[in-house]
Amino acid sequence: MTLHRPGFTGSPIDRADHLRLDPAAIADLLKGGEARLLTLSGHDPVLGDDGRLAWSAPEPEAQELIFLGLREGSPLFAPLPKVETGQRAWGVFQILSRMRAEDAAIWGTARGLIEWHNRHAFCANCGSATAVFRAGWGRKCGACNAEHYPRVDPVVIMLAEHDGRVLLGRQPQYPPGRYSALAGFLEPGESIEEAVAREFMEEARLPVQNVRYVASQPWPFPGSLMIACIADAETDAVTLDLTELEDAIWADSDAVRAALAGDPDAPFQAPPPYAIAHTLLRHWLDASDRLAAGGAPA
Amino acid sequence: MTLHRPGFTGSPIDRADHLRLDPAAIADLLKGGEARLLTLSGHDPVLGDDGRLAWSAPEPEAQELIFLGLREGSPLFAPLPKVETGQRAWGVFQILSRMRAEDAAIWGTARGLIEWHNRHAFCANCGSATAVFRAGWGRKCGACNAEHYPRVDPVVIMLAEHDGRVLLGRQPQYPPGRYSALAGFLEPGESIEEAVAREFMEEARLPVQNVRYVASQPWPFPGSLMIACIADAETDAVTLDLTELEDAIWADSDAVRAALAGDPDAPFQAPPPYAIAHTLLRHWLDASDRLAAGGAPA
Repeated sequence: MTLHRPGFTGSPIDRADHLRLDPAAIADLLKGGEARLLTLSGHDPVLGDDGRLAWSAPEPEAQELIFLGLREGSPLFAPLPKVETGQRAWGVFQILSRMRAEDAAIWGTARGLIEWHNRHAFCANCGSATAVFRAGWGRKCGACNAEHYPRVDPVVIMLAEHDGRVLLGRQPQYPPGRYSALAGFLEPGESIEEAVAREFMEEARLPVQNVRYVASQPWPFPGSLMIACIADAETDAVTLDLTELEDAIWADSDAVRAALAGDPDAPFQAPPPYAIAHTLLRHWLDASDRLAAGGAPA
Repeated sequence: MTLHRPGFTGSPIDRADHLRLDPAAIADLLKGGEARLLTLSGHDPVLGDDGRLAWSAPEPEAQELIFLGLREGSPLFAPLPKVETGQRAWGVFQILSRMRAEDAAIWGTARGLIEWHNRHAFCANCGSATAVFRAGWGRKCGACNAEHYPRVDPVVIMLAEHDGRVLLGRQPQYPPGRYSALAGFLEPGESIEEAVAREFMEEARLPVQNVRYVASQPWPFPGSLMIACIADAETDAVTLDLTELEDAIWADSDAVRAALAGDPDAPFQAPPPYAIAHTLLRHWLDASDRLAAGGAPA
């Protein structure tokens, strides 16, 4: 089955991990004339007149850089600016909606790393200052030598299905009319499937079974791995945790179809195409349509 | 399809997240007589005469504790000892092979949290001392108020399939004869599927496509989420990264069957049942057998 490709995936970059621990090779790449430095505004993307990510020639001695990898032989770098961390930065979503998929993937990788560096200037093990190592893919403590690697926090994001409808929730900070898949951070000591079941119980008192993985995406706000699943709800009776959700609806395939099509009369506004909740709804709708035509369930 | 259940899953505990931010409720639970404290040796499990995890009555004021959650109404706690971190501790695997699945899941959760606390006494944001909060499910900085949550590092672990055989690799520190699925940490800016493809390229120069998710497990050494997948290899020609693997083999279904059965004449020794590589091989073998009988591929 062809899946709508999740946002922030599809980077054309070879990460060339073997070069990261070779500072001399990285220095040579920087000087080599083919090197390109990603242009950023803070940690937001900057688009050129062609609508693509803007790049410039790097000044090798100027600043700390992240080595993103090689694209068609060209070494690509990102700057490592000091940025305000922990902000949701809704403005960037306007830019994202105009960006090509591969540019979003490249920028997202840089964005996630930059925020991580800004939040990890000190060693969690001993409290001393840390410095960039592995060409931007880690930090090392100058005192205790502990090595620190960028966090990737797994998040489960999921639809519960019952009687041909799926459960969608609304968080208070969503744009007007928006409903989306429920989601939550996976915790130590649980599988993806267990996290999905726990989150449905915590947020909606909803027992589920038969959790199926659908797709995944990196989400650089600030550094999650979104793991999208579908589960079977045992009932359509829900009791919401109002500290997490202000409302929830059960949407049928007509409602989901209208929302994904951007129909102004749709009963809810769908999440944007670069969010994996969009991918998940599209997957469910396709499977629902196949089922209606006599095929197998999602 | 019924899946061999991955190790460290199946905990019977209700994590009762809503109680974690309520210190008065936690204190009441500790005093209530039903509370139980997990007995540990360092951070290793201790089994009673019945072969089950050993528990005792907690002394409420004695030490920092982790609130694991509720089991049949009983509040369960784990201690938070100072431990040597970063050790592989092969000895514990002997104990694990004798533990019930639900005990391994409970202990694994505690083990992962304890190591995380020991490695995160200081604030990565400002370098100051942090203190336990959320009943053991986080740390908070006394200076900048940054909140820190336990890391869960996603790892892809995967089989490549070609012409009825799967690729297995051997790391130098494995027990004699052991071969297992290739694996590696997922990085910022990539999906599960992209991480699988990258790792096969890095470790074996092997191009793959059609990556399928199979199962997941928490792995508490020290705190990973293992995400098990199968992919189609475009060739059986591999070039190993000898810094990662000392050898690799292509195993057919007879070889995998013999290894999983513990046959002393098997061409390799399978990973133990609590490792998800075992689950993955069993899943592949079952699918391979179904395919041989005329069914659909894995």
